[in-house]
Amino acid sequence: MPPSLRFALTPGEPAGIGPDLCLLLARERQAHPLICIASTALMKERSVQLGLSINLIRTDPGDWPAQPAPAGSLYVWDTPLARPVKTGQLDQANAAYVLQTLTRAGQGCLDGNFAGLITAPVHKGIINEAGIAFSGHTEFLAELTQTEQVVMMLATRGLRVALVTTHLPLKDVASAITSERLERVTRILHTDLRDKFAIAAPRILVCGLNPHAGEGGHLGREEIDIIEPALQRLRDEGMNLIGPLPADTLFTPKHLEHCDAVLAMYHDQGLPVLKYKGFGAAVNVTLGLPIIRTSVDHGTALDLAGTGRIDCGSLQVALETAYEMAQSSLTPKSARP
Amino acid sequence: MPPSLRFALTPGEPAGIGPDLCLLLARERQAHPLICIASTALMKERSVQLGLSINLIRTDPGDWPAQPAPAGSLYVWDTPLARPVKTGQLDQANAAYVLQTLTRAGQGCLDGNFAGLITAPVHKGIINEAGIAFSGHTEFLAELTQTEQVVMMLATRGLRVALVTTHLPLKDVASAITSERLERVTRILHTDLRDKFAIAAPRILVCGLNPHAGEGGHLGREEIDIIEPALQRLRDEGMNLIGPLPADTLFTPKHLEHCDAVLAMYHDQGLPVLKYKGFGAAVNVTLGLPIIRTSVDHGTALDLAGTGRIDCGSLQVALETAYEMAQSSLTPKSARP
Repeated sequence: MPPSLRFALTPGEPAGIGPDLCLLLARERQAHPLICIASTALMKERSVQLGLSINLIRTDPGDWPAQPAPAGSLYVWDTPLARPVKTGQLDQANAAYVLQTLTRAGQGCLDGNFAGLITAPVHKGIINEAGIAFSGHTEFLAELTQTEQVVMMLATRGLRVALVTTHLPLKDVASAITSERLERVTRILHTDLRDKFAIAAPRILVCGLNPHAGEGGHLGREEIDIIEPALQRLRDEGMNLIGPLPADTLFTPKHLEHCDAVLAMYHDQGLPVLKYKGFGAAVNVTLGLPIIRTSVDHGTALDLAGTGRIDCGSLQVALETAYEMAQSSLTPKSARP
Repeated sequence: MPPSLRFALTPGEPAGIGPDLCLLLARERQAHPLICIASTALMKERSVQLGLSINLIRTDPGDWPAQPAPAGSLYVWDTPLARPVKTGQLDQANAAYVLQTLTRAGQGCLDGNFAGLITAPVHKGIINEAGIAFSGHTEFLAELTQTEQVVMMLATRGLRVALVTTHLPLKDVASAITSERLERVTRILHTDLRDKFAIAAPRILVCGLNPHAGEGGHLGREEIDIIEPALQRLRDEGMNLIGPLPADTLFTPKHLEHCDAVLAMYHDQGLPVLKYKGFGAAVNVTLGLPIIRTSVDHGTALDLAGTGRIDCGSLQVALETAYEMAQSSLTPKSARP
């Protein structure tokens, strides 16, 4: 029996579907104790609105539960709102509350209280409107944990896709593909696949930047001038890297069957296939952090909050992935496949 | 019973798998007379090499067959090679032969001898090495038919993806997305879905250029400055266009279920999903030509020529699509769905 690991769960934006997802999930017993960091009042109100009778069990630092909550129950570390929430309506007054839940969760991971953190969606706009500079969960957690470079990876059953660049205008992508960035990102991906997914010798497929991976220089030279030399240096360090391959032929069974992750050069090169394959069951994993953090791959869906017409698939996979990563981090290296 | 339409089939590069595909296909009866424009000697030799006994039936202009060839037979319009082919070995001497087969096929469509043209892969490199400027089937046929703008569309069962830009280095994509180009390409796509696919009011999903379709200008302004205004002008002409949508959420059942085609801004935004979904059974359709032309979505695979270890799936879909397009072109507009 593996040790009972404890995890933090943040519902994110209180007016959105995050609280709903956490409550719907609590209908079944989790594999590990899961601490929802949220306002108890909010969770109670939303539970009534959804017609669920979830038993909210108060828990506090230093008094953590050793066992998972029974089906129909949810551990809550009460974190008060500034103002009661109107379901579906953003309120600047609660921006600091959202960040407080994240700080508690992230710091709790650093302090060893939690084996990992699973996040439901926040609303960037309302936090910024409240006068707090905030560009997303990932950047917030990178700063909290003093991490210089993180890597965004999306995963679904049977496919993992990590990105060299993420939220950049397309016109800025090509110049952002430097050998320095590519090597840094690939090292993080390789290290985390090994240390957080217990894959002894990760096999990574790397996309080219240009169509047909540049077709020998006819459709762009970045593969020849930047990507191939960088991959060769990393191979010399012992990494198993295949590519650069054309993105439109890489995502086919012949190539994917024997790989542990795909490294795409930019957002819309890698994520359409991932989300097509995994729709409703994809998870966003932040690599490079000193803590384990997974997230749903969707937004706050304000219009669906309180309706119950939502799908927990992505949160379910986010939880399973965090559990798997935490277990893998405990696996002795000698026992890895 | 629909009228018997006659089609041209070009095996392309004689040293590659094109001839093999045509021979493998001839094992079964086609729905329409299919005229293979190739060297009879080559086809006979390759047939022996593959251990197939395909009956090659000579056919000539003015003496076209009215019925499909029986199973195990193939109509051939004999087009002599300059030099006998060594399977798998490119030879500059036969570059002019390849173009001759394409000219016969394309001109035959213009002259009304063929209802459409299906092409197996050519090898651009060897044609250029032979001193003939050639940038691909599509450009060759555009010139032959004096067409200014063509549109590349890939299709598989259940999904069609057309591209605003095709074989451009990624760094040049953003500046190539002009309202003029976008409107021209969208008009061709709309017209051909209506006239060659018999879809009375095509519903087209349009991708944004930037990740998250620019996220309201935070991740690029092309959606706001170029794409949205262009789409609005086209909507004012009566087109049913949805978007610009983020490419990573557009390719999900909710959006795809009710659309006739996706318009992607560039190669690696649209084709990875298409080929993931349709691998081994995708077809490349050239829109905007005054003739019907479909093609396999793969290359010459020189190393597999003569081995028989190849999959006819893509050529099969290319044929079915050409047949469907030709039938649709005959459908009276009043009878369209």
